[in-house]
Amino acid sequence: MDPRVREHSETLVDWSARVESGDRVVVVVDEGSHDLAVAVAAALGERGATPAFVYESDEVQRAYQLAAADAAGGPGGGSEPPAFDEPTHQLALYESADAVLALRGGRNTAEGSDVPGEVGAAYARANQAVREARMATDWVSTIHPTRSLAQQAGMSFDAYRDFAYGAILRDWASLAEEMAGLKELLDGGDEVRVVARGPADGATIDGTEDAPATDLTMSIEGRTAVNSAASVAYGSHNLPSGEVFTAPVFDSVEGEVVFDLPRTFGGTTIRDARLRFEDGGVADFSAAAGEAALADVLDTDDGSRRLGELGVGTNRGIDRVTGNLLFDEKMAGTVHLALGRAYADCLPEGETGNQSAVHVDLLVNMRRESGAAGVTRFEVDGEVVQRDGVFRWEDGFEG
Amino acid sequence: MDPRVREHSETLVDWSARVESGDRVVVVVDEGSHDLAVAVAAALGERGATPAFVYESDEVQRAYQLAAADAAGGPGGGSEPPAFDEPTHQLALYESADAVLALRGGRNTAEGSDVPGEVGAAYARANQAVREARMATDWVSTIHPTRSLAQQAGMSFDAYRDFAYGAILRDWASLAEEMAGLKELLDGGDEVRVVARGPADGATIDGTEDAPATDLTMSIEGRTAVNSAASVAYGSHNLPSGEVFTAPVFDSVEGEVVFDLPRTFGGTTIRDARLRFEDGGVADFSAAAGEAALADVLDTDDGSRRLGELGVGTNRGIDRVTGNLLFDEKMAGTVHLALGRAYADCLPEGETGNQSAVHVDLLVNMRRESGAAGVTRFEVDGEVVQRDGVFRWEDGFEG
Repeated sequence: MDPRVREHSETLVDWSARVESGDRVVVVVDEGSHDLAVAVAAALGERGATPAFVYESDEVQRAYQLAAADAAGGPGGGSEPPAFDEPTHQLALYESADAVLALRGGRNTAEGSDVPGEVGAAYARANQAVREARMATDWVSTIHPTRSLAQQAGMSFDAYRDFAYGAILRDWASLAEEMAGLKELLDGGDEVRVVARGPADGATIDGTEDAPATDLTMSIEGRTAVNSAASVAYGSHNLPSGEVFTAPVFDSVEGEVVFDLPRTFGGTTIRDARLRFEDGGVADFSAAAGEAALADVLDTDDGSRRLGELGVGTNRGIDRVTGNLLFDEKMAGTVHLALGRAYADCLPEGETGNQSAVHVDLLVNMRRESGAAGVTRFEVDGEVVQRDGVFRWEDGFEG
Repeated sequence: MDPRVREHSETLVDWSARVESGDRVVVVVDEGSHDLAVAVAAALGERGATPAFVYESDEVQRAYQLAAADAAGGPGGGSEPPAFDEPTHQLALYESADAVLALRGGRNTAEGSDVPGEVGAAYARANQAVREARMATDWVSTIHPTRSLAQQAGMSFDAYRDFAYGAILRDWASLAEEMAGLKELLDGGDEVRVVARGPADGATIDGTEDAPATDLTMSIEGRTAVNSAASVAYGSHNLPSGEVFTAPVFDSVEGEVVFDLPRTFGGTTIRDARLRFEDGGVADFSAAAGEAALADVLDTDDGSRRLGELGVGTNRGIDRVTGNLLFDEKMAGTVHLALGRAYADCLPEGETGNQSAVHVDLLVNMRRESGAAGVTRFEVDGEVVQRDGVFRWEDGFEG
């Protein structure tokens, strides 16, 4: 076994999930994650934890959802989408668990591409309580590099493994310290403004070459940012991580944003999604690709038309978009916004924040990749915190 | 996909488990059973059932058990075997399930061969409640043919799939009728005697060439036999099946038995296990191979030294030992006896029968494969029901 797989399992169990003796852990094994599951099993055995292993496969899910839709006579049969039952047996499993380790790593990222959005949305609604039960544990999602993910990234398997472990096996304790400053800025700030140049095709709000395509403001007053240092001890649930995120006040979002980095979601790639917000809700939208998938997300429920998250990538170990959100949204020089559910950790005591069955992140490129230097910026209360993807405490920042 | 995989999934869901709309089903997916899991997911979706998928892998289990044993300082460290905790989260899953479909099909049948028996036994004890919860559902175990199982059988993958589907895709309704007669005989009978010639090396009780190596008697008074027609509707939980089994009165077993068909168990093959019973318990034992593994089984608990099952194979579609119990014990012309736990379905109302954490089947060859024709026989109350592997209602029977 590649020694990095063992190191990955130890980082996951010890730094990320903080597993202790006696913990009941659910290990979610994706189709291609077997090797990491073996290493995680050994790490859990060493620490005296008790695992249960769940199998997740996009191919299995697709077969189930399409068959249920066919049996319900729709879609295509002109009938309602299937009324999936809540999986109460799964719910019982997760409600009895202390931690959930999701080992992501499939064999075909396009496997869900022919599941109609309304079928996927109906399934997501039936599984909302299961998702909430998972999120009530010390859950962590990580990535086991597979050939399919290498393909999605346009990389050889060998190079992709180097990339993935380069992002995963970091000195998380010292990164956590570096990110504390950004969290402090967001915790103390009231308003965020995101201004960006993209997309690359030159379409901008006013049609002029250097004008911004994105100009979005939102209140973050009273919110608490999460220093996402890849550990539940920091309220962070991804390995790798490297982002600071918070929850916008959901009716405060105003303006227009273009998500000029591609986002593969349910097997479909959404490109250059353009959303205009009024009073916190999406007033209109378009996309250069994947517009129907975006429409399905927006139509899930009331909360899916509002923002649940504002995140700022800080992981300088991630230097490219690979089509996998867990990496992409952590890339330093990007900002992401999520349609749907807000994370409870960001909200004031007693406030529920934006509720939804979905949580779909979309990404804005903040790096200097066009001639329009200086346009792209991230501001807190009118102060430029990042310009052209460079934080003000980094070398090369141009105030 | 091989159309037989779809046919297999439909037989499993409809004939075997009798899954209905609204059922909560746990699908246990072994390492190599992915394709069958996809077909089963579709069948469950069509029928309106709600699945949860569990991952089982001998490699993952081995890693967990060995790491836990190392952390406990033994075995080899001179300490106690690890005290595994009961997996209460798994228990909650199975206690909330209506049916459990176990899709067996690993990638290395020897994977458990270096897990010390006492570690495996400690793990089995911690999982006893989980096993009981699974058995309280409409559970069915089946086999997805894998390359590893073909290798174990000494067959090409192509030939093995033909063999496996030949045993699985039968006319179960008409087989069930054929087996009803044998069940009637066992239900009405008080005493069973098994006399057999083996093993092939010529060792017999009194050293003479034609004397039996096996001569065992047991009471089955008041017991109810199960007509194992591969359906929960018949109290049968294996697909394929094809056996009639009952539970001996556990303190009534007397005599000697040689299990002259090989049995692979926990990665070790047990050959020519020889057990002598007194007052229902194993008084002494030996084996030509795998004696230590047999000793570990016998030492699990009090019940593991007594018999929990007497079974008679009836599936004429199975014509050879392939090293996989689910097939081997169904072969017409064999009798099997299980050390350990009795099945509740065989017991009189209110009687618990033999209790144990284990249930280990061992097989006696009843077919005419030596010159000693006529020695080998299966008797109920002194009447010969089968001689040299031929039932008295079959052509070729020599009373």
